[in-house]
Amino acid sequence: MRTGVWLVGARGSVAVTSIVGAAALKAGLAEPAGCVCEHPRLRSGALPGFADLVFGGHDVADTGLLKRAEALAAAGVVPTPLVAALHSELSTVEEEVRPLPRADTQRDTAEAIAADIASFRERHDLERVVVVNVASTEPAAARHPAHESLESLRQALATPDVVLPASALTAYAALSAGCPYVDFTPSTGTRLPALHELASRQNVPYAGHDGKTGETLLKSVLAPMFAMRRLDVRSWSGINLLGGGDGATLSEPAANAAKSASKQRVLGETLGYVPDGHTRIEYVPDIGDFKTAWDLVTFAGFLGTPMRMEFTWHGCDSALAAPLVLDLARITAAAHRNGLCGPLPELAFFFKDPLGTAPPHGLAEQFEALVTFVQSLR
Amino acid sequence: MRTGVWLVGARGSVAVTSIVGAAALKAGLAEPAGCVCEHPRLRSGALPGFADLVFGGHDVADTGLLKRAEALAAAGVVPTPLVAALHSELSTVEEEVRPLPRADTQRDTAEAIAADIASFRERHDLERVVVVNVASTEPAAARHPAHESLESLRQALATPDVVLPASALTAYAALSAGCPYVDFTPSTGTRLPALHELASRQNVPYAGHDGKTGETLLKSVLAPMFAMRRLDVRSWSGINLLGGGDGATLSEPAANAAKSASKQRVLGETLGYVPDGHTRIEYVPDIGDFKTAWDLVTFAGFLGTPMRMEFTWHGCDSALAAPLVLDLARITAAAHRNGLCGPLPELAFFFKDPLGTAPPHGLAEQFEALVTFVQSLR
Amino acid sequence: MRTGVWLVGARGSVAVTSIVGAAALKAGLAEPAGCVCEHPRLRSGALPGFADLVFGGHDVADTGLLKRAEALAAAGVVPTPLVAALHSELSTVEEEVRPLPRADTQRDTAEAIAADIASFRERHDLERVVVVNVASTEPAAARHPAHESLESLRQALATPDVVLPASALTAYAALSAGCPYVDFTPSTGTRLPALHELASRQNVPYAGHDGKTGETLLKSVLAPMFAMRRLDVRSWSGINLLGGGDGATLSEPAANAAKSASKQRVLGETLGYVPDGHTRIEYVPDIGDFKTAWDLVTFAGFLGTPMRMEFTWHGCDSALAAPLVLDLARITAAAHRNGLCGPLPELAFFFKDPLGTAPPHGLAEQFEALVTFVQSLR
Amino acid sequence: MRTGVWLVGARGSVAVTSIVGAAALKAGLAEPAGCVCEHPRLRSGALPGFADLVFGGHDVADTGLLKRAEALAAAGVVPTPLVAALHSELSTVEEEVRPLPRADTQRDTAEAIAADIASFRERHDLERVVVVNVASTEPAAARHPAHESLESLRQALATPDVVLPASALTAYAALSAGCPYVDFTPSTGTRLPALHELASRQNVPYAGHDGKTGETLLKSVLAPMFAMRRLDVRSWSGINLLGGGDGATLSEPAANAAKSASKQRVLGETLGYVPDGHTRIEYVPDIGDFKTAWDLVTFAGFLGTPMRMEFTWHGCDSALAAPLVLDLARITAAAHRNGLCGPLPELAFFFKDPLGTAPPHGLAEQFEALVTFVQSLR
Repeated sequence: MRTGVWLVGARGSVAVTSIVGAAALKAGLAEPAGCVCEHPRLRSGALPGFADLVFGGHDVADTGLLKRAEALAAAGVVPTPLVAALHSELSTVEEEVRPLPRADTQRDTAEAIAADIASFRERHDLERVVVVNVASTEPAAARHPAHESLESLRQALATPDVVLPASALTAYAALSAGCPYVDFTPSTGTRLPALHELASRQNVPYAGHDGKTGETLLKSVLAPMFAMRRLDVRSWSGINLLGGGDGATLSEPAANAAKSASKQRVLGETLGYVPDGHTRIEYVPDIGDFKTAWDLVTFAGFLGTPMRMEFTWHGCDSALAAPLVLDLARITAAAHRNGLCGPLPELAFFFKDPLGTAPPHGLAEQFEALVTFVQSLR
Repeated sequence: MRTGVWLVGARGSVAVTSIVGAAALKAGLAEPAGCVCEHPRLRSGALPGFADLVFGGHDVADTGLLKRAEALAAAGVVPTPLVAALHSELSTVEEEVRPLPRADTQRDTAEAIAADIASFRERHDLERVVVVNVASTEPAAARHPAHESLESLRQALATPDVVLPASALTAYAALSAGCPYVDFTPSTGTRLPALHELASRQNVPYAGHDGKTGETLLKSVLAPMFAMRRLDVRSWSGINLLGGGDGATLSEPAANAAKSASKQRVLGETLGYVPDGHTRIEYVPDIGDFKTAWDLVTFAGFLGTPMRMEFTWHGCDSALAAPLVLDLARITAAAHRNGLCGPLPELAFFFKDPLGTAPPHGLAEQFEALVTFVQSLR
Repeated sequence: MRTGVWLVGARGSVAVTSIVGAAALKAGLAEPAGCVCEHPRLRSGALPGFADLVFGGHDVADTGLLKRAEALAAAGVVPTPLVAALHSELSTVEEEVRPLPRADTQRDTAEAIAADIASFRERHDLERVVVVNVASTEPAAARHPAHESLESLRQALATPDVVLPASALTAYAALSAGCPYVDFTPSTGTRLPALHELASRQNVPYAGHDGKTGETLLKSVLAPMFAMRRLDVRSWSGINLLGGGDGATLSEPAANAAKSASKQRVLGETLGYVPDGHTRIEYVPDIGDFKTAWDLVTFAGFLGTPMRMEFTWHGCDSALAAPLVLDLARITAAAHRNGLCGPLPELAFFFKDPLGTAPPHGLAEQFEALVTFVQSLR
Repeated sequence: MRTGVWLVGARGSVAVTSIVGAAALKAGLAEPAGCVCEHPRLRSGALPGFADLVFGGHDVADTGLLKRAEALAAAGVVPTPLVAALHSELSTVEEEVRPLPRADTQRDTAEAIAADIASFRERHDLERVVVVNVASTEPAAARHPAHESLESLRQALATPDVVLPASALTAYAALSAGCPYVDFTPSTGTRLPALHELASRQNVPYAGHDGKTGETLLKSVLAPMFAMRRLDVRSWSGINLLGGGDGATLSEPAANAAKSASKQRVLGETLGYVPDGHTRIEYVPDIGDFKTAWDLVTFAGFLGTPMRMEFTWHGCDSALAAPLVLDLARITAAAHRNGLCGPLPELAFFFKDPLGTAPPHGLAEQFEALVTFVQSLR
C-alpha cells in the first residue's frame, strides 16, 4: 500500500508540518495526537499506515523545507529537537518538491503538473498518489461558461485564456493523472461541473472543502447544542486574528468574503435559521501561526430571557491541520483502492464546507458517518 | 392525561419560573423556547401537553408565588407583563403550595408528605403526579447502614433518628405514594439501594441527577469534540460565579465539593482520562440569578503544540432549568403510563450526573438515546 | 446660573437618557452615579447644579420623548419606574424639542437653528445655553476651500451649495448664537479653521471630540500601564459589536473608518509607537443598546517573552454617555461664565480624540488636568 | 558603584530569569524590555548600571543554575540561544549560590546567613549588597511576642524556638549585615516592629511587599478608572491559574489566603469601598510558568444600569518579575548610597501590598511618586 501524498503548496506551513509529523511518526519520535484515524473507532487495516506514505509536491516558493521547518520550530509550531533529528528525512522529501509548472496554455500547464505527479509515482513505485491542496486561499474565482462541461473545458484550456483558477487547474491535472484529490482550502478546487465529470470518467474520488481547524470546529458542536436545547440563537459574531501567510491572503476582501461565508454556513445548516452577525478575518502579523478567534453568541431562553456566551480559541492552525492532511490522504487512498469515485460526502467531519447536497453539519453526526464509512472500507 | 407536577422547593426560582412559564404556554402568551420536547424529533402524542399539567408543591419558605414571580421579573428572569397577565393562574397554584411537614419521626414526616401529594392528586382528579426536586442543594449526606435495604430503612425511619437527608426523605415519600420522581439537584434523592428497591416494588420510574444548565452542558459537547479530534486535553479549569439562593448554599464547602465533582465527571467519561484542574463555585450576591461561568482548557495537538480555549457562559439558571423541568415531568409521566419503572438512564441528556452504570456523556449521543426513548413511548 | 442644554439629536438614546437622568437627579429619585463632576476632587460651586439645567433640542426624528424613554426602559437602559414617575417632566422638555430647520441655503438653515436656540434662551430666561451634539455619527466629510476662513465660509454658505456637513453647520449656528459647543461625536463639528475663528470672535469656548465611553476608556488606562512598565505592545486588535441606531450608522464603511481611527489614536499617543492591529465596528441588531467590545493585546516582556491579554467590555453606551453629557454641559457653561473661549483641551478626560496640539492621552493625567481646570473656575 | 544582588531563592524561576537577563543585558544580547528604570523619565546616573551588578544567593534546592535556565528556555520563559550564549556567566554566578544555612538556634542561622553575604561582599569588593527575597511564598506566620521589639527578638532567637518565619529570619540577617532588603513576596519579611527597629538602627532601607506582576497590576489601573468615572463597582471576582513552583505553594489554603487578601487590597484603597467577590488561586501543573488570570467586574452606571467587563491576562510571571527585581536592586542600592533608611513607600509602584500608612494604590500616582523619588537620588 505504498501511497504518495502530493502536496500543492508543499513549502507552506501546513504542508511542512505534515511532512515533519509524518516523518516523526514513521521514526517513532512522536505520538499521533490530533490524528483522527487513530481513534479507536476509526482504526482500520484498510488505511495505509504512516510508514506507507511518501511525500512530494509543488510550490511557487523556493525556501527549502529544512529552513521552513526550522522557522516553524522557532515559532513554536513543531519541536526544535524533532526538526534536528529529521534532517535526512526532510532532505529526501525536498528532492520531490518541484516548482509549479507554467506553460503558454493552461492545458500545457496541466499536462506538466500531471507529468510531475506521474513521474513521482513511478520513481517511488507507488500504488497511488493522493493530491492534497494546501496552498494559500485564492480570491473567489470568476465563472466561465467552459466550467459547465468537460468537453468545453478541454477546448477552452487549449486557448491562451485563463479559464481555471490555479486550484481548479491543479485539480484538473490531478484527476487527469488518475489521482484522488483533496481540497483542504476554500478555493474553487473541484467545485465545477466539468471537474465532477472528469472525476467520474477517471474513476477517482475527491474530498473537500476547507479543513475545519478552529472556530468552525467549535461552531459544529455548539450550534447543534443550541438546537438540541431549543435555545434561540439571536446573533453569532466573531473575529479571527491571524498572522501567518494565510492571514495576509485572507485579509484581501475577496478571499475574506469567501472564507467568511464558508464559516457561517454551519449555523444555518444546524440551527435551521441564520442568526445575525458575521465572522471577520483580520491579519495581525505579530500573531504568527497561532490564530486567535473570538466569538460572541447571544441567545434567548425560556420566556425570551436574553443570555450570552463567548469563547476564545487560541490554536495553531498548522498543527491542527497537519494531522488531518494525513488522515485525509490515508482515507482517500483507501477509498480509491475500494473503487469509489466522485465526491466523498462521508468526509464532512473534516471540512468547513463539506461536499454533497445535504451533508450533516453537526460534528457528532459527521463523526458517525465517518466511522461507518471507514469501517466499510476493505 | 391530566398530570400533576409536585415541586419540592415550590417557591424557589426554578419552580416559580416553571410555573409562570407553564401558565404562559397554556395561555398562549409565550413560545416554548428551551423546551426540548418541542424539538421536531421529540414531539410525541404520548406526552401530556402543557395544558394537561397541574402544579403544586412543598416549600419551607412562605413568600407567596406572586411576590416571588415579581422579584424574578424585576431581576430580568421572566417578563414583567407576563407576571401581570397571569395573576389569577399564579393564585390558583398558590393554593396548592404547602409548608413542608415535620413530624417526630421521619416515617411520620414521609407519611404527611405522601398524604399531601395524594390529596392533591384526588382534588384535581389527576391521572398521576410526578414529583420533581428543585429545592436547594444539600451538603453531601452521611451514609447510614439502613440505606442498604428497604426493610432496614423502614425500621430506622420509625425511630427518632435522622436517617435520610431531606431530599431522600421526599423521594421516599413520593415513591411510597406511587409517584415517579425526578432529581433536578445534586442532592442524594433516590441514590440509595433502599430507594431503588422501593421504586421497583412500587413500579414507578425515577430520573436524575442534577439538571444540566450551563457549564456542564458546554462540557458535554466540547469534551467529545476534543476526543473525536484526538486532541490531548491537558487541563480544564473553571469558576462559576453565581448570586441566587443556590449560590449561597453552594458556597458552603461541602455542597460545593458535591457539585464540583458532578461537574468534572463528564470529562473523565467522554475523554477517557481526567485532565488537570477543578471547577470552583463562588457566591457573588450582586450577580443574582444570572450565572457567569468561565473555563480555560489547555490542550496539545500534533507533535505536542500547546493550545488553549476559554469560554464565558452568562446564563440565567432558572430560565435554563425551568423548561427542562416541564420536559422531565412530561416524559417521566409518559414513562410511568407506559409501565416503566426504576431508573431512566435514557434521560441522561438532561443531567450533569446521569443515572445508570455507563450512561452516555456526550450530548449528541444522549440526544439520540432520548429521541429513541421518547419515540418508543405510546 | 440657570443654564440651557440644547441637544442636537434630542430624541436619540444618549439625549433621552441624559434628559431622564437630569430629571431624576433634580427630583431626588437617583444618585449621580457616573457623573464625574460629583467626584470629591471635582465638586465645585462654580458649576451649575442639576436643578439649574433646562433642556431642549433639535432632531430629525419625531417619536416623542416619552415613547423613546419607554423604549429605553424596555431595553434595560433606564429603570421603568423612573420613566413612569417623570411623565410630566418629560412632557415639559418635549415642548422644547424642535424639528431640525431646513432652508434653501445653509446660511438660512443656520439662522433658523440659531433662532430656535435664542428663543429657548429667552423663553426660559437662561443665563446661557450650551449646545451639545449627540446626533448620529456622520460619514467623514469632504473638504471644501471655504472651511479655511470665516469670511470665505460665510460667502459660501449663502450659495445653494452644501458647504458644511450637518454637525459643522450646527456648530456654526451655535457659535453664531454665542453658545458654547460640545462635540460628543466623531463628526466634524467645530474641527474647521473657520469655526475656530468664529468661536474666538464670539468669545465662546468649545469642547470635543467623541465621548469616551467604552473600549477607548480602557485603552486610556491600559496603554499607559504597558508604557510605564516598559512592556512592548506588539499588537492591539479589537471588535465592537453594537446594535443601536449608532451601530447601523457606524457599520457604513466611511463612518466606521472615521471612528476606528479615533479609537486607535490613543495607542500611538500613550505608547510612543503604533502597534499592529485595527478596531472593527460591527452592527448586530440583536445586541441593542448594550455594546460588546473585545480586544486582544499581544505584548513582549523581558527577553522578548510573548504574552497576551484580552478583555470584553459589555456596557450600555447611552448610560455611560449620558452623565458625561451633563458633566460637559456644566463645565463648559462655567468656562463660558469665566470668560474662556476657543478650544478647551483641559476636557481631554471626556474624549476619544481630544482637542489641542498635544493633549494628554493617559486617563490619570487627563483627570489631573481636569481637576486643575475645574478648581480654577470661579 | 559595584553592587551585589543577593537572591534568597536563587535557584527559583524569578531569580534565574533575573540572572540570565542581567547577564544578557551586560553582554549586549538583549534590550531592557520590562525594565522600569529605563523609562525616559526614570533614567538616572544615581542608579548602578546593569554592568555594576554582581549576583549571588541562597537556596534550599540544589539543581544547578544552568540546568534551571535550560528548563526555563524549554518552557518558553527565556530564549534558548541566550542560555547557550551565557554558559560561562551562569557558571560564575553558580559559584556564589550557597545552600541556606541551618543551625541549632535561629540566632546562629542568621549569623551564618550574614556571614555568607559579608564574605560575598568582600570577595567581589562590592560597595554594597542588596538582599532580595524571591523565595516561595510562606504560609501566614504565627505571631510571637518577641516580634515587638529588637531586644526581645534577640533574646528569643538565642533559644531553640522557631521565633521567626524563614523570610523574616533572612531579613533579620540581611539588615544585621547592613544590607538593604527587598521583599518581592507576600511573606512576612520585614513586616515586624523588631525588624523595623533593626533597619533604623543599622541605617538601611527596605522595600516591599509582593511584586505586582499581573492581575493586581491591571487592578491598579482599572479600579482608578472606575473611581474617576464614578462608576459603581458591584463585584470584582477572579481566578488565577498557575502551574509553576509558586502555584503549588499558593494552592495551600493558608498561603492562598495571604496572597488573595493582598490582591484585593488595591480595590478598597482605590475605590473607597470594597465590592463583593474574591480572588482564587488554583494550581494547574500543565500551565507551567505562564499564569492565566481571569477577572469579572460587574458595575452600575447612570441610573443603576448594570454592566460588566472581564479580562484574561496570560503572562509569564518570571518574565514579568525579573526586570522588576533588577529595578528594585538598583533603586534600593542608590537609596542606601543616599543615606536613606527604613521603609521606602515611594516604591509602591512595584508592589501589590506596598509599605507605608497610606501609600498610593493607583498606578499612575505610584509612577509619579517613583519618578520624583528616583530623580531626587544623587
